[in-house]
Amino acid sequence: MADKLAVGIDIGGTKIAAGVVDEDGHILARLKRETPTTEPLEVIDAIADITEEFRREHHIRAIGVGAAGFVDATQSTVLFAPHLAWRHEPLRDAVARRTGLPVLVDNDANAAGWAEWRYGAAQNEADLVLITLGTGIGGAIVIDGQPYRGQFGIAGEFGHMQVVPNGNQCECGNRGCWEQYASGRVLTRRARAAATEGTDFGKTLLAEAGGEVTAIEGHLVTKHAQAGNDEAVEWIAEVGDWLGVGIANLAAALDPGMFVIGGGVSDAGELLVDPARAAFSRTLTGRGYRAEARIVRAHLGPEAGLIGAADMARLTARRRRPANPSARARVRATARSSRSRTRRK
Amino acid sequence: MADKLAVGIDIGGTKIAAGVVDEDGHILARLKRETPTTEPLEVIDAIADITEEFRREHHIRAIGVGAAGFVDATQSTVLFAPHLAWRHEPLRDAVARRTGLPVLVDNDANAAGWAEWRYGAAQNEADLVLITLGTGIGGAIVIDGQPYRGQFGIAGEFGHMQVVPNGNQCECGNRGCWEQYASGRVLTRRARAAATEGTDFGKTLLAEAGGEVTAIEGHLVTKHAQAGNDEAVEWIAEVGDWLGVGIANLAAALDPGMFVIGGGVSDAGELLVDPARAAFSRTLTGRGYRAEARIVRAHLGPEAGLIGAADMARLTARRRRPANPSARARVRATARSSRSRTRRK
Repeated sequence: MADKLAVGIDIGGTKIAAGVVDEDGHILARLKRETPTTEPLEVIDAIADITEEFRREHHIRAIGVGAAGFVDATQSTVLFAPHLAWRHEPLRDAVARRTGLPVLVDNDANAAGWAEWRYGAAQNEADLVLITLGTGIGGAIVIDGQPYRGQFGIAGEFGHMQVVPNGNQCECGNRGCWEQYASGRVLTRRARAAATEGTDFGKTLLAEAGGEVTAIEGHLVTKHAQAGNDEAVEWIAEVGDWLGVGIANLAAALDPGMFVIGGGVSDAGELLVDPARAAFSRTLTGRGYRAEARIVRAHLGPEAGLIGAADMARLTARRRRPANPSARARVRATARSSRSRTRRK
Repeated sequence: MADKLAVGIDIGGTKIAAGVVDEDGHILARLKRETPTTEPLEVIDAIADITEEFRREHHIRAIGVGAAGFVDATQSTVLFAPHLAWRHEPLRDAVARRTGLPVLVDNDANAAGWAEWRYGAAQNEADLVLITLGTGIGGAIVIDGQPYRGQFGIAGEFGHMQVVPNGNQCECGNRGCWEQYASGRVLTRRARAAATEGTDFGKTLLAEAGGEVTAIEGHLVTKHAQAGNDEAVEWIAEVGDWLGVGIANLAAALDPGMFVIGGGVSDAGELLVDPARAAFSRTLTGRGYRAEARIVRAHLGPEAGLIGAADMARLTARRRRPANPSARARVRATARSSRSRTRRK
């Protein structure tokens, strides 16, 4: 029986993906459940079942859950998950009661960012900013070896930074959010419009989607771009351009050494990342007088969230990040010790 | 002779302000030099003179310098200071050689942010985001009791995040930067336009500026707004509105507990901050499902930079932030100790 293992759970839009993850970030076993993830109770049941099944073969120490939504700063409650229709769901304690194990809940992008920092694209970096391009844009920040979640747990929601005043309507209620210009939904929108307009490429896409406009998804565009279709390449380059502009904004604020691009849209590879790099270099403030962050693709693929959630749970079960008062206390202590050292001189 | 003191230096556009700062953030002595701050050598001379003068009365332990520009991550070199026309100026070592004291150089907004966190508006906060509204927009981030400077030292340049595609031309070379919509230069621009157009309010402003359109500055608008002039109030509210929109963007990315608004434009008080709060609450993503950051005015006024630079220099002379490898080493150590504790069970 292997030791030092944690279960990682990724709650997607319609199903649950789970794995047993070791201390090197390797997945030793996998399970999937086609569960209506909009129902918290069914999700809790599924996690308990999965964990029980894993425990027959493995010595599990903790459970990490990644969910697409706002998770509170104590990593216990899903505050708001529009795609899952969850509101203030106390997932951590429910799963802990059912399994008797330490549980951690985090935003799925935060979990993926942690995995890329620990085991993936940013292994040799101090800090990391992850941008996941799926239907929308998710994000994560790792600073000085710690996932940075903000005061209320909701940092990294880059997709909802406004980039166009009175721009495209966003599902979040605002207009002009970045994810309206630089995510998979842009490709889907363009592809469906082409199908509706009946362009040649639109007809091809429509046929491949079984004749249903609403069945056309962005990954079809990626496939055609990789096969050399000019229109598809242009649409992805347009997304890449907006990606680079937004990255320049984040660099102005955060100045990390590396941006890691993950999520399904990043399957387009250099077709996406090259235009992003060009736009970044064109729009970064102070360019020419500063070092520039590298923009790279994520390494761990769609299982990054599962790996990161498990890893954070394993580490957090043993250690908690110092709370706010002690951060301040640390500075005071430094000031004090600086004083006493001064006196000793 | 008092002990545990540091000199704080603020290099402004045309002059140098300096103070002796104690460990409680109080300024015990002040000096100003009307020096062409565009000349690094004259600035170094002035800092050496000032320090010598302070040392006659005080036991100085370190010197902290705040400058409006990009400062590298080792806090030694001013990489790029458009207003001072400096390029790659190794200020730290030059001042250290002249004075024989430990020296730290930082961006002026970083220094002000640190002062507000230690002694000002954010004394009881874990994290802080400072936004200074002067001619442009500066910024600073404090996370978990540490000034956050990014990988290359240039974090917090919020003013150059693009908020309007193809928007107003910015001095940085880009278009549509936030500081083109939410800083003192907006007030100056409006006021000068009114003077040129010859509106009633424009004529008043022109007369107060001695008949020179280019002598009209934003603080005149603030004065009239405080006296109840509708037009001036509206201009400041417009700046406040853009301020709130940008704060909502920063909250999406960073989710801090508090935003502190400093700089000369913040003298407008609630005339500025109330519209900012309204725009923030209107545009924050996920509003209603999350706690919202407070938006407050800075407490320490124009001497915040000087106080913060001195304080950072005093603390840093004794302690250095762990470098990148040790951040990663810390995580590894935690993982190791977690493992060994697991074994002991």
